[in-house]
Amino acid sequence: MDKEIKYEDCLGWAARDPSGKLSPYNFTRRAPCSDDVSLKITHCGVCYADIIWARNKFGDAKYPLVPGHEIVGVVKEIGSDVNNFKVGDLVAVGTFVDSCRDCEHCIERNEVLCSEHPIFTFNGLDKYGMITKGGYSGHIVVSERFCYKIPEGYPPAKAAPLLCAGITVYTPMIRHKMNQPGKSLGVIGLGGLGHLAVKFGKAFGLNVTVFSTSASKKKEALELLGADKFVLSSDEQEMKSLVNTLDFIIDVASGDHPFDPYLALLKACGVLVLVGAPSEVRLRPTSLLMGAKSIAGTGTGGTKHTQEMLEFCAARKIYPEIEVIDIQYINEAHERLINRDVKYRFVIDIENSLK
Amino acid sequence: MDKEIKYEDCLGWAARDPSGKLSPYNFTRRAPCSDDVSLKITHCGVCYADIIWARNKFGDAKYPLVPGHEIVGVVKEIGSDVNNFKVGDLVAVGTFVDSCRDCEHCIERNEVLCSEHPIFTFNGLDKYGMITKGGYSGHIVVSERFCYKIPEGYPPAKAAPLLCAGITVYTPMIRHKMNQPGKSLGVIGLGGLGHLAVKFGKAFGLNVTVFSTSASKKKEALELLGADKFVLSSDEQEMKSLVNTLDFIIDVASGDHPFDPYLALLKACGVLVLVGAPSEVRLRPTSLLMGAKSIAGTGTGGTKHTQEMLEFCAARKIYPEIEVIDIQYINEAHERLINRDVKYRFVIDIENSLK
Repeated sequence: MDKEIKYEDCLGWAARDPSGKLSPYNFTRRAPCSDDVSLKITHCGVCYADIIWARNKFGDAKYPLVPGHEIVGVVKEIGSDVNNFKVGDLVAVGTFVDSCRDCEHCIERNEVLCSEHPIFTFNGLDKYGMITKGGYSGHIVVSERFCYKIPEGYPPAKAAPLLCAGITVYTPMIRHKMNQPGKSLGVIGLGGLGHLAVKFGKAFGLNVTVFSTSASKKKEALELLGADKFVLSSDEQEMKSLVNTLDFIIDVASGDHPFDPYLALLKACGVLVLVGAPSEVRLRPTSLLMGAKSIAGTGTGGTKHTQEMLEFCAARKIYPEIEVIDIQYINEAHERLINRDVKYRFVIDIENSLK
Repeated sequence: MDKEIKYEDCLGWAARDPSGKLSPYNFTRRAPCSDDVSLKITHCGVCYADIIWARNKFGDAKYPLVPGHEIVGVVKEIGSDVNNFKVGDLVAVGTFVDSCRDCEHCIERNEVLCSEHPIFTFNGLDKYGMITKGGYSGHIVVSERFCYKIPEGYPPAKAAPLLCAGITVYTPMIRHKMNQPGKSLGVIGLGGLGHLAVKFGKAFGLNVTVFSTSASKKKEALELLGADKFVLSSDEQEMKSLVNTLDFIIDVASGDHPFDPYLALLKACGVLVLVGAPSEVRLRPTSLLMGAKSIAGTGTGGTKHTQEMLEFCAARKIYPEIEVIDIQYINEAHERLINRDVKYRFVIDIENSLK
């Protein structure tokens, strides 16, 4: 670690209390240390986690709290030991900015499972003793290990949602070997994460069925996102017709819903990946025992999968569907996100609106 | 299929009604068809499934019902096309006696997942239109595909419990790669299945911790079965000290119990294999999400794993702990099994007591 840390001013938008209301906030960040990259933020995606912590839903919010962990920007300065980035590079930062770097998971570059816990991009305590502050701000400084290259030509605003929504569905899809063309995938819930699960699924050559409680999503699921089939989860007859037909399910629904009817749709040895966080998981043991099925939890992904995913999205022209907003609109955007009124991810145009 | 089926007399013990009370019963079995092996049964293990169906717990019992699917015997006759067995061979039959033989699972010799459902050894409907009758009987006739060789020198009585209890824990251990020396395994529940999970775990080179609600099992778990550690599940302090220490858990407890405290003991990416059937599975989503953990169901195993397991047990001198009984004692044995009063598996000495 460098001996003397210097600090630089930064303008961001912060929540001051559990109302979660955001407003401009001046703070300091460290100047780049030897292995750091400093980036001028151009865009930041809006994740439901921003609201969870801005409103102190887990009781551990450290105010003033600057949210944002889907960060895209341009390198403006690098430390003396930085090898992989140069000034002017288009880069990204995701949900964590440090980890122990020594445990088996860090060695595999799956730092999100770090045995000492990764340091989150905002509301975390970093090794300099500072509370981390996220991407609703003018610039950010991170160790180059936790910075990603955005492939040339990829639109910066569209890259932002990949850093949390994207990697959170990409990682379990790779881990559970969903990249096998011809297999069948069910996606429960069609929001920021679900719409990317559909796009990844199609890119992997899967037959994708979207399950939703809302018939209004049918047209977009099929026409805009390219799903093969849309099923209203309340349509018992159609659900029944799909028993034993799916190899995988990605469940990104955060609302409470039964699990047994979906597990019944899996073939033998099928896996339901739980991504969303309903209030509880409750099911009949036979739903798992018959056909040796599994429910697997997942967090987000590590640096290895994140870089790989960015390259995959560029190569396969996978672009999140976004609504670009000014930072001044962020409080309305949070309200709309709570009401699921977004298709499919807000991205803040930091570069042109944060002043 | 052979054109003309002949029938032979067989003596067994059957339940006649949901009391589940067993008594002698004369019936017929087909004489061996061209690919059949007929075996004189010497031993049959007593599985809890015998009681479930004898007492019609699932509502589908077809009386008179002859239970028993942990069958060991000596080949007494073979069909004209049988290649792998000869008269006098010591062989075994497990929980199923036929399957479609064509689906992807059957092709992999994992017939228990047959997409048309395997035909169970008792209370099933076979392709001859007969209700299958199990190993509480003098002989049985099965297609050679569903017959296993017992390795030379392996004690026949001890082989019986391997055909259901053994393969039911062996299969998920292989599937979830628990045969990696140095990894750590938790076993919840120490009955017929649990005691074999401990023995397999030690043979695989795992560090094995037994969890039980009963302190009385400690001495045997450590001394007789060779577990490394015994934990009373009610000991909150010891449970807490084991958080994030286990790679795998095999849960064979049939009684209701919480899942969150056990999932907390798993390391990142750890798997809890559900083998027992409590009345429900209920847990907090974060128990799976934090650390990307899984709950995986499992049934029993196919013919490939079953033969492999028998050879593994012979090579590694793994022997189930059994109490040998006469068939005349079977009703008391069922009662004792319900009261968990057996260490660790009853095996009926059919050869010397069925007359």
